[in-house]
Order: sequence, then structure tokens, then C-alpha cells
Amino acid sequence: MPRVRIVRRLHFSAAHRLSRPDWSEERNVRTFGECAHRNWHGHNYELEVAVVGPVDPETGYVMDLAALKELVERRVVGDLDHRNLNLDVPWLADVVPTTENLAIGIWQRISPHIPPPAVLDAVIVQETPRNRVEYRGG
Amino acid sequence: MPRVRIVRRLHFSAAHRLSRPDWSEERNVRTFGECAHRNWHGHNYELEVAVVGPVDPETGYVMDLAALKELVERRVVGDLDHRNLNLDVPWLADVVPTTENLAIGIWQRISPHIPPPAVLDAVIVQETPRNRVEYRGG
Amino acid sequence: MPRVRIVRRLHFSAAHRLSRPDWSEERNVRTFGECAHRNWHGHNYELEVAVVGPVDPETGYVMDLAALKELVERRVVGDLDHRNLNLDVPWLADVVPTTENLAIGIWQRISPHIPPPAVLDAVIVQETPRNRVEYRGG
Amino acid sequence: MPRVRIVRRLHFSAAHRLSRPDWSEERNVRTFGECAHRNWHGHNYELEVAVVGPVDPETGYVMDLAALKELVERRVVGDLDHRNLNLDVPWLADVVPTTENLAIGIWQRISPHIPPPAVLDAVIVQETPRNRVEYRGG
Amino acid sequence: MPRVRIVRRLHFSAAHRLSRPDWSEERNVRTFGECAHRNWHGHNYELEVAVVGPVDPETGYVMDLAALKELVERRVVGDLDHRNLNLDVPWLADVVPTTENLAIGIWQRISPHIPPPAVLDAVIVQETPRNRVEYRGG
Amino acid sequence: MPRVRIVRRLHFSAAHRLSRPDWSEERNVRTFGECAHRNWHGHNYELEVAVVGPVDPETGYVMDLAALKELVERRVVGDLDHRNLNLDVPWLADVVPTTENLAIGIWQRISPHIPPPAVLDAVIVQETPRNRVEYRGG
Repeated sequence: MPRVRIVRRLHFSAAHRLSRPDWSEERNVRTFGECAHRNWHGHNYELEVAVVGPVDPETGYVMDLAALKELVERRVVGDLDHRNLNLDVPWLADVVPTTENLAIGIWQRISPHIPPPAVLDAVIVQETPRNRVEYRGG
Repeated sequence: MPRVRIVRRLHFSAAHRLSRPDWSEERNVRTFGECAHRNWHGHNYELEVAVVGPVDPETGYVMDLAALKELVERRVVGDLDHRNLNLDVPWLADVVPTTENLAIGIWQRISPHIPPPAVLDAVIVQETPRNRVEYRGG
Repeated sequence: MPRVRIVRRLHFSAAHRLSRPDWSEERNVRTFGECAHRNWHGHNYELEVAVVGPVDPETGYVMDLAALKELVERRVVGDLDHRNLNLDVPWLADVVPTTENLAIGIWQRISPHIPPPAVLDAVIVQETPRNRVEYRGG
Repeated sequence: MPRVRIVRRLHFSAAHRLSRPDWSEERNVRTFGECAHRNWHGHNYELEVAVVGPVDPETGYVMDLAALKELVERRVVGDLDHRNLNLDVPWLADVVPTTENLAIGIWQRISPHIPPPAVLDAVIVQETPRNRVEYRGG
Repeated sequence: MPRVRIVRRLHFSAAHRLSRPDWSEERNVRTFGECAHRNWHGHNYELEVAVVGPVDPETGYVMDLAALKELVERRVVGDLDHRNLNLDVPWLADVVPTTENLAIGIWQRISPHIPPPAVLDAVIVQETPRNRVEYRGG
Repeated sequence: MPRVRIVRRLHFSAAHRLSRPDWSEERNVRTFGECAHRNWHGHNYELEVAVVGPVDPETGYVMDLAALKELVERRVVGDLDHRNLNLDVPWLADVVPTTENLAIGIWQRISPHIPPPAVLDAVIVQETPRNRVEYRGG
């Protein structure tokens, strides 16, 4: 059975700030630059979730993309959209909300819920039209 | 002399919240929905500034687009990028930072500085890939 | 009070065919080329709806974009998405479903429902990344 | 000799319907949702074809991209553009025309015709701006 | 009869340089900056041609977009694509090839050939993703 | 420590011509078609640089994207933007400036300068919206 990769794209808008509470303001600004601004800033995030698996010979589907969308909306986008990544998201509470940590956190929220034999292949987060990050587990 | 419209596109990322301090939290949420979330959210804004004027017969320019870019960066983007539209921007202090009010505010910052005979024609602000606003003065 | 133009972008996927039932197949193909193919073809349509009006001094809104989205989904997108423009849409039954006629039909569906003092300003329909049409009433 | 991946993007518009003739209408709708609509719907498909191989030291080419374009137009796009994927395409006749099966079918049409030592690396089909599929053989 | 605006988008790649042969190199660089670089540079230009007219009640067309495409390819794109705007284009020979002058030149090449009652409404030339120009005649 | 891939996108505009000085004009045109045009043509190139590495547990960064941007601007974009790839770039002097050779040359300029333990993963060069090339070393 051929293996195919399917990708669903979703969108959310959030505020954040790159800073560590255990560092001084001065050290945060030196490390994170403008992204450490104390009154927050924000982004329109574009999120892509990629799943790989065999194509079901009856339906021609790896996985119903509508079900994938519903899963990601319920477990990820609903927690992030119109929220503050530093203050409002329990599963990001222990990390600096860089795009790298955001992608890892999203992977952990989705990966156990992909119906086998399909598996999560990648989480891609675009923070701006010029910056993006890809996490493939491991 | 032919009149031509030139457009420069710029980008900034900011946090905001739609709410009036003179309204109750409950009324803000009823009016502005998710956009009233108290811990802020944010966007990648795409800004287009359009200028109209005669084409200089010597240079073939309405206005040097590099000069237009520099003007908008200095008087607008520098105040907005990686900032909080509610807390950090003196020229937005008296309004709810909707995309409409943002476009009007940007117009007022730029319009007096366009070198005649060219004039500012429009300020277009895209808040998300699905929402944008256009202000043409008046 | 300043007047501002707000634009909401929506999406639908539909099948269609350009042909007149009162013409011969040969005449339809001669006039409409590939678009007359008898077994249908289809597009991802991008729809933009523009509304103009004064900015409410209390809310900073011309019109709540969420309400505009809901209106267009209910009266337009719900009738068109995953449908056949020739067979399934009562308000297109009497015209060839060109992008021009689609824009005019959408205008008529939405225009009477924009809450005054705002008014519908334009309906823009993009049929492919290379082709689009704009209707402004009248 | 360095190995490089080259990608050519092409476009086609087609109608389709997700349904199995050996299933009841009710079962098709339960499985495929809106995509099973009996009067068809359609999409603007974006197709990317990726080829990998050594760079020819004389020309600096892996493969002439104009030749790749011509190959894909002749063997794939010419069969699909302004056509119905269920009714008009012999090489899709035995499968449900999901994006997965479309990518596999396109791979089989192109793969044997890539001039060695270059080889086909991936077929990527974007059905909507939010959904895409990637097939890499095997 | 309703009047509608139709837009066709086309693409070409060209080299150019902003400089006047009657000015010194030093004055050209002072006026045009990097764009005066003596060994040329180039762009992927995106060209939009907009036509306005009444919708033909029989066909539902303002003008056949395939005919508009063919006209613009024959009279404009064929002269510009993979060419040098300073050296290779007779109808740009007397002007500095700024985006403004390019839009005016394209207007003059197309405007007399739009079949009445439709008329050319605008020529829009995007030189980079951040810069574009619009000419509407007059 | 999880390994993540980060990508930065940059832009430059350049002129070039595909031709070998040791071949006849006729052979160049036969091999490279329009791209061999003797008076040059040009493109808006989109460049993506991908870096892979472990996420620093303190900062949440693989590598500061601002530092990556600065590196690519200094060692690559500064040499290419508003330049002629055949005439102005010492590190491309010995090759035909195809997109393949451009990607390889950019890799060699950047790869030794990525701060360990991160490593350069890919250089992706988009020459037109329809053509792109990817080099991953080796």
C-alpha cells in the first residue's frame, strides 16, 4: 500500500513575549531583542500539521482531513487563538514561547491522537512571512 | 503629465485588545467578542501606503519609493512594530485600536509629509489574511 | 465622521460549466472554449466583500467583520460551496455562471442586508489566481 | 557531483466528487461529507513536481525545467485541466479521486519519463489553500 | 446593463537599470541609488490589466478573458519577457524604465485594442512583492 | 534535547544570463532558450535558508533568527541584490548562474559560518513563482 503525506493548514492569532521570569529585564532584552518588549507583541501564526500513512484502498484517504482539522482545532487552536502564549496556555507554561517551543508543544498535543496506522510526521509553524520552524519529533 | 499611483507595502507585528476602559468587561466582550480578551492577542499587520501624483518627466518617478518607505518606517512602523497598540502608541491613545482607527491614525501621521505635488491616496491595513481596511481621507 | 472601507475574504469550491442550453454544443464550445466542457470543471473561488461607511465613534467599527462574515456565509457561501453553479443555485438559474454573473448575483444577495449607514461597495470574485472580476453595483 | 532538487509548479482546474459507485449514496455522504455532493464540485489544483539528480557540470542543470514543464503538461495537465476527474481520465478510472490517489496517479504518469540519472522525487498536489498531499513513491 | 471590471494577471521577467544617458554616472547613482547599478539587475514583474464594460446578456462576459490574455501577450509580454527594458524595447526607448513609465507604456500598447464598448480601466505593475504602480490613463 | 529546523526567508533582485563563454551564441540559445538572451534578463529571487539543531533549553532557540538573517545578508544578499550574477559576483565567476549553481554557491558561503551544534540543512532558491531549487549539501 502506498504511503502518502497529507498536510492541513490552520491559522491563529496570539500575543507573546520572549523573556524568562528568572532573568533580569536587561538580560532578556540583550538576548531576545525587540521580542522581549514588556507590553507584549503578537502574530498571525500559520500552522501546518503533516500526517503520513498508507492510503486506505477503499476510501483513498490516509486520514479524513476534516477529522484532522477538527482534532487540531480542539486540542491546539482553541487554546491559542486570541490568547497570550505566556499567560493563557497551561501546556506552554514552563517554556519561553519561541516558535521552536510552540512547535514542540503542538506536536505533544496532537501526536498521541492521530489514528493508527497513520502517524504525525511534522508540525510547521510560520510566525511571520519570513520566519518558520519545523519539528518532526525525536 | 500623466498621473500614476504608487504603492509601498510594509510589515509590522503588534499586540492589541479591543476594549473601552469606560465600559464593563462584560460589555466589551459582548461587543468585541474574542478580540476583547483581557490578556491581549496580536497580529502580523501588512500595511500598504498609496501615493498619487504626476510622473516627473526627468526621473520617471512620482516619488522615490525608497523615500516613501523611509518616511513610513520612521513615522509609523517604528512606533508600532513589536509594540502594544493600546499601551505604547501616543497617537492611538484615545481610540479603540480597531483596524479602522489604525488606518485613520496612520493616514494622519503620513499625509502631511508627502512631498507635493504628490498626495497620499490611501492607507490599507491588512490585519489577517481574511480582513483588511482602506482609508482614503475625508 | 471618517468613512472607511472594510473587506472580508471568504472561500468556496464549486463546479460549473459555461454553456447556454438554448445553444448547440458546437456553438457553446466555439464561444466558451474549454470552459464549455460537458462534464463540468471547477474552481477554488476567493470572494471579497467590501463595505463602506462611517466609523462608529464608540466602537471604532464600520461594521462588525464577524457579522459581515456570518451574513455572507449564510446568504452566499452556504449556497455555493461544494455545489454545482449551473444545477444547484436557484439565484443563478437564469444566467450563464461566468465570474461576472456570479459577482452580480452575490451583490444582489448581500446588498439589501448591510446595516445602514454602511453600504455594500464591491463584490470581488477571483476564479483562478490569474482571473478576477469586480462589481460595484449599478 | 552535487545532487540538487528542482521543483516545477503547474496549475489545473477540475471537477470531481468523492464517492464509490459500489456504495449507497447514504454511505458515500457519511464517509465523504460535502465532497460526495452528487452534482460535483471542483478546485483550482496547484501541482508541484520535484526531480532530484546530479548537476550537469557543463550546463549547470539537473534537468531543463522547460522540458519538465512540457512533460507534465503533456502527460498530466492536458488530461486533467477543465475535466471531470471521475468521468474523463482513464488513468483515474479505478480509484476514488481523492488528492492522495491523484498524487499517486500523477507519479505513475511521470516517473518513467524523467531522463536518467535524474529521478522523480515527489509529487505534491494542493487541492485548496488549506489542504495538500505529497507522494514520494514506494 | 450592469458594468463589471475584469482583471487578467500575467507575468514576465526582465532586466533593467534606472539611469539617464544624458546624466553622469555619479548623478544617476545619487538619484536612483542601487537601481542605477551599471551591470543591470532584474525582476519578476506581475502585470494586471483591468477592463471595464457592460456584461453581454447572452454570454455573461464583459470580454473573453482568453482574448484579453492573448492581446496582452502579443503586444506587451512578448516584447518584455526575458528582455532588457533599456535596450530591447522600442516603445520604452525614450524613457527611464521606472515602474511608472512601464505602466504608461503598457497602457498605450493595449488601450486602443480593447473591443468597445469595453474600455481599458487600469494597468497595474508589481515590480517586487513590496512595490507596485497603477495607471488609469489621463 | 529535541532537534528543530528553522527557516529564514530573504529576497534579492538580480540580472543574469544562462550562457557559456566557451560556446557559440547559437549553441547557448539552443541549450538555454530564452534564458540565453544576450542583453540579460532578471528575477526577484526568494531565498530560504534552513538550519537544524537542538533547542537550547534556556532560550528556546536553535539559533537566533536575527543572527541568521544578518549572516545571510552579509555573506550572500549583499553580493547579489541589484547585481548581475554573471559579471559582479566573484564566487559565481566559474559557473553558469543557473538556480542550481546559485543554491550550491550560497550553501558554500553560509555553511561554515553556522554556529555549532546547529548545522545548515538546506538552501532553497525560488527563481520565479513556478520554479525553485533545493540543495542540502553533499
